[in-house]
Amino acid sequence: MDSQGFEFSEARGREAASALGLPVLVPSTALFTDRYELTMLQAALRSGAAHRRSVFEVFTRRLPEGRRYGVVGGTGRVLDAVENFRFDDAVLSFLSTEHIVDDETLAWLDGYRFSGDIHGYPEGEVYFPGSPVVRVEGTFAEAVLLETVILSILNHDSAIAAAASRMAVAAGDRPLMEMGARRTHELAAVAASRAAYIGGFSSTSNLAAGFRYGIPTIGTSAHAFTLVHDSERDAFKAQVVSLGSGTTLLVDTYDLSEAVRTAVEVAGPELGAVRIDSGDLVLLAHRVRQQLDELGATNTKIVVTSDLDEYAMASLASAPVGAYGVGTALVTGSGHPTCSMVYKLVARARSTDPDAPLEPVAKKSLGPKTSLGGRKWAARRRDEHGVAEAEVIGTGPVPPELADQQLLVPLVVGGGTAGREPLDAARRRHVEARGALPLSATMLSKGEPVIPTEVV
Amino acid sequence: MDSQGFEFSEARGREAASALGLPVLVPSTALFTDRYELTMLQAALRSGAAHRRSVFEVFTRRLPEGRRYGVVGGTGRVLDAVENFRFDDAVLSFLSTEHIVDDETLAWLDGYRFSGDIHGYPEGEVYFPGSPVVRVEGTFAEAVLLETVILSILNHDSAIAAAASRMAVAAGDRPLMEMGARRTHELAAVAASRAAYIGGFSSTSNLAAGFRYGIPTIGTSAHAFTLVHDSERDAFKAQVVSLGSGTTLLVDTYDLSEAVRTAVEVAGPELGAVRIDSGDLVLLAHRVRQQLDELGATNTKIVVTSDLDEYAMASLASAPVGAYGVGTALVTGSGHPTCSMVYKLVARARSTDPDAPLEPVAKKSLGPKTSLGGRKWAARRRDEHGVAEAEVIGTGPVPPELADQQLLVPLVVGGGTAGREPLDAARRRHVEARGALPLSATMLSKGEPVIPTEVV
Repeated sequence: MDSQGFEFSEARGREAASALGLPVLVPSTALFTDRYELTMLQAALRSGAAHRRSVFEVFTRRLPEGRRYGVVGGTGRVLDAVENFRFDDAVLSFLSTEHIVDDETLAWLDGYRFSGDIHGYPEGEVYFPGSPVVRVEGTFAEAVLLETVILSILNHDSAIAAAASRMAVAAGDRPLMEMGARRTHELAAVAASRAAYIGGFSSTSNLAAGFRYGIPTIGTSAHAFTLVHDSERDAFKAQVVSLGSGTTLLVDTYDLSEAVRTAVEVAGPELGAVRIDSGDLVLLAHRVRQQLDELGATNTKIVVTSDLDEYAMASLASAPVGAYGVGTALVTGSGHPTCSMVYKLVARARSTDPDAPLEPVAKKSLGPKTSLGGRKWAARRRDEHGVAEAEVIGTGPVPPELADQQLLVPLVVGGGTAGREPLDAARRRHVEARGALPLSATMLSKGEPVIPTEVV
Repeated sequence: MDSQGFEFSEARGREAASALGLPVLVPSTALFTDRYELTMLQAALRSGAAHRRSVFEVFTRRLPEGRRYGVVGGTGRVLDAVENFRFDDAVLSFLSTEHIVDDETLAWLDGYRFSGDIHGYPEGEVYFPGSPVVRVEGTFAEAVLLETVILSILNHDSAIAAAASRMAVAAGDRPLMEMGARRTHELAAVAASRAAYIGGFSSTSNLAAGFRYGIPTIGTSAHAFTLVHDSERDAFKAQVVSLGSGTTLLVDTYDLSEAVRTAVEVAGPELGAVRIDSGDLVLLAHRVRQQLDELGATNTKIVVTSDLDEYAMASLASAPVGAYGVGTALVTGSGHPTCSMVYKLVARARSTDPDAPLEPVAKKSLGPKTSLGGRKWAARRRDEHGVAEAEVIGTGPVPPELADQQLLVPLVVGGGTAGREPLDAARRRHVEARGALPLSATMLSKGEPVIPTEVV
């Protein structure tokens, strides 16, 4: 091990940066792990059970209260995390110094690379209670280690994607701008931008999200910019000189109607947009639209950005608004900042023989935490018009009529990444998947899952 | 710039790793920034206002609904972020290629290091509506850039610290174990462990938090470990052989009372603890305690871990429970996953002369988004018994009787970090600060801020 306790080669840094980047280099995702995964590994290596072929599944027992569908977010980031999940010298040194696992376990971890298979719902797909969103197959040892990092990513990103999807429905054709970085952890914010884009947002204020994922970035000015100048007019002039008349001027620092007048005087009727960040947005949007039209700025758009959520956007549907900027409500999942996905052992062999048959297993205690054992397939049954009727999951053979409606796709095969795709593919998939649900799926009011989950 | 578009030297990687580490190397925090900060910078460089001396303050207009006090979390991470906020070649190349700012601005950013002063409430301190939690002073250009990253960190970490503090009150003397990594973004989880520790948690399941911050880690086994073995007895034996009889056995996979009997048979009466993760915890804790006592395992503790929050812990106060493991409720801020801290320009000079006097500025629009201009001090007035009476903030001279009760401390002086401290200092400070509040501060029921904020 490195004498400084931290080994990090430049070449490896670049490689990891390109995979898990952000502006952040991640030498390994192996410590995004709960300690019990390693202590289980140690005990299972001793008992021999570590080498039994095993199947873990990620699913949720329920959707967040009132939600009619879930949205799979984070699959692409799971692939990054699995690729980078390895125990380098710095990590091993920590585990050794802290006596977290014994030497036999450290030696096993030293060579760790996941070599099994992962199937899952493709990113952007919708899901329901019981949907096997991800299925991980390998030895118990190699699969048990991935629990925490897979759940962290899916529970966070799917919560944001679901909120984004509801907002996209409420926004209709109007563009949605993600502006929530300041309301969540600085790196969660980058993942949130990504999930929002999948759910239907079109841009982000977050430069790291632009850097890492190529999401279009937007943004012009804040109240501070107006306040640092001697007058609003000076500020608007400075902005228009520097950014052009297509810019968006923030008009609610002092008096709104005076600001709108000044804005059009300074930028001319070709002013791109004005932004309103406070007050009764419905009322103000109508007033400002009328004023802009009277000033001849008929093509100048109105952008609104004040603590919006899907309900506020729905109430603005008939207001003359050109685009929405959304922050807090998006990055906190609009009331549901996490999903309740769990990672459960559902089947395992009774011996370490690689050909030993899998046997279903499940926690048996009474109550809501009981789960369904067995390695599962999933399909979405549709009616004659192509509208989804039921989420069907089972452990036996797939019924022939559902064979071509299966939901699980290969993500990792024999340890190699198989399911990589551009972010736009997930974004398009989500529109299609949501569009194939019954119409009541997109009601904003609280409801039950829009299709039932059937176990066959 | 580097031909590969990503410049990263090994030495710089190590340096950044030690500062902002995790297992993650962060070459720069400069992209944790909303695009508008850079476009404002560009326009202000053009107008000249960029070079005006400016004061920004972080504060919140209200506490989350029903909360009686807030807890400052993230200050130490803000110091890391400011130290690492610089525009390296990769970042500049991105900004240039994407036409986010012009060449003059790029040149200015190339040499950027924050050279101003930052004061703030020390970490772990409590705060109230209007408290100037952080005050950033420098030129407009250098201070405006820090908005997003400072808010991201404080809004996230303070939300978690506040939830942790309420849980610590509810838990009383019983240890609190943080187990929420799987319910939040994988790096937010590390910050959450840190904030939870400050708020009163004693350990974490999160290995990255142990690695990065030295927080004690805990964890033994999940249901999967029991299920991968042929019987619960085999699993318990394997765990005790490997981890010793002081381990914690999970006893709710099949039949609880059979599991407790097996656990004591396998580990002997010196069994460390049993963990219950489902069911009616009050009822089950009493039953299991009685059974353990009858089996002679009178020192074996009971650990409970099923979707706990501060209310569930309060209801378990009289149950024979030794420790609590908390996940979802902690990392989602127990109903309030973010704070509403904002970063506002409150004063600036009217010229670029470094000796020009500061003038207060504030947004003037009507409604709740109006704020108080001027560079502020803050103090907590106490009664003769040392109990806090009021949060006093002002822009003029500090009244002599409050001079030694001021809350803002130097964090960065002339660009150099001044406020670094061990995590335990913040943890101890929080206990003291909370203890000096009126008794009703620690009621779990909804209420108003426990002391008023007075503006003088």
